[in-house]
Amino acid sequence: MIQTLTIQTHSRTEMINMDTTVMKAVRQAGVKEGLCVLWVPHTTAALTINENADPDVVRDILSKTGKVIPFENGYRHAEGNSAAHIKSSLFSPSLTAVITGGRLLLGTWQSVFFCEFDGPRTRKMMVKVVEG
Amino acid sequence: MIQTLTIQTHSRTEMINMDTTVMKAVRQAGVKEGLCVLWVPHTTAALTINENADPDVVRDILSKTGKVIPFENGYRHAEGNSAAHIKSSLFSPSLTAVITGGRLLLGTWQSVFFCEFDGPRTRKMMVKVVEG
Amino acid sequence: MIQTLTIQTHSRTEMINMDTTVMKAVRQAGVKEGLCVLWVPHTTAALTINENADPDVVRDILSKTGKVIPFENGYRHAEGNSAAHIKSSLFSPSLTAVITGGRLLLGTWQSVFFCEFDGPRTRKMMVKVVEG
Repeated sequence: MIQTLTIQTHSRTEMINMDTTVMKAVRQAGVKEGLCVLWVPHTTAALTINENADPDVVRDILSKTGKVIPFENGYRHAEGNSAAHIKSSLFSPSLTAVITGGRLLLGTWQSVFFCEFDGPRTRKMMVKVVEG
Repeated sequence: MIQTLTIQTHSRTEMINMDTTVMKAVRQAGVKEGLCVLWVPHTTAALTINENADPDVVRDILSKTGKVIPFENGYRHAEGNSAAHIKSSLFSPSLTAVITGGRLLLGTWQSVFFCEFDGPRTRKMMVKVVEG
Repeated sequence: MIQTLTIQTHSRTEMINMDTTVMKAVRQAGVKEGLCVLWVPHTTAALTINENADPDVVRDILSKTGKVIPFENGYRHAEGNSAAHIKSSLFSPSLTAVITGGRLLLGTWQSVFFCEFDGPRTRKMMVKVVEG
């Protein structure tokens, strides 16, 4: 079973905590032990795991990667969003997590984040749960 | 079943669209619903997902990452390809995709790319399909 | 079955070869063909695959990424380890490998490395093996 979630982003770059949504999808899949593969079908967005406690961590991640890979940089791609494509590849559009006891195995400070690198847009995220 | 594909690269850095080859391997595996794990057994190459429509996207990815991680940079590794090793870790040698209806679940603009970071060489890529 | 490994790191940034430990965990799982998902429950550490032969490769990876993402950079996060959070997302806290013949499918020069980006600390790493 594959569940498709819709995400509305509101800024050009943004990281959105997906824990509640992903955990609900895992519960609905009804699998106690297995894997959870998360996927975004976009090339200017990504998924990552990082800290949920201090929102300054997310701000620093977006700010620093925006300085290393700036939007304006003499790129050839005419759409003007090459920086978002590059960040999508570096962060990765896919994430494989472990399910145990019917829940995602996350560390205390870990959350799943949807990374918008060229918003605002309406985005999708797929959740595939495999028993095993 | 693990299928091994051979890839001939032609430049020092290059991204090669692998969609046709990977989709053929998925069809041959005969799995309708499951996971597809792609793997390169190299430490100076990688796999990624990105846009296939405008070839300037690939050019920008290679050009910009080559500026952030240049080949000449006072590295210690005597082989002279430390930049390729670093890019391999940042892009990742492995990719887990979802199979549904016997096909890879890719977004409209998404393609699987083999990333050569220290070519030209003859490379390998493994495709492992798991039902579930 | 999920196995939890403990890792003691000794430097602020460090890459530790985990091959022996991971291969032992795979043997104990007793699975001949399948997947091995590795996971660190931390947001300032990561997992990667890279070369094990010349230790200068690891030195170059840590040194260069430390220059691109320096510890001191005007970050907002008050703990002072934003660079480690950023590197954790770029390298990824998770890795999916293939098991065949009861062993990890690694290339000749590939090893699994635990990446410490904010040590020294006592860390954990989870190994989940799935048959298929």
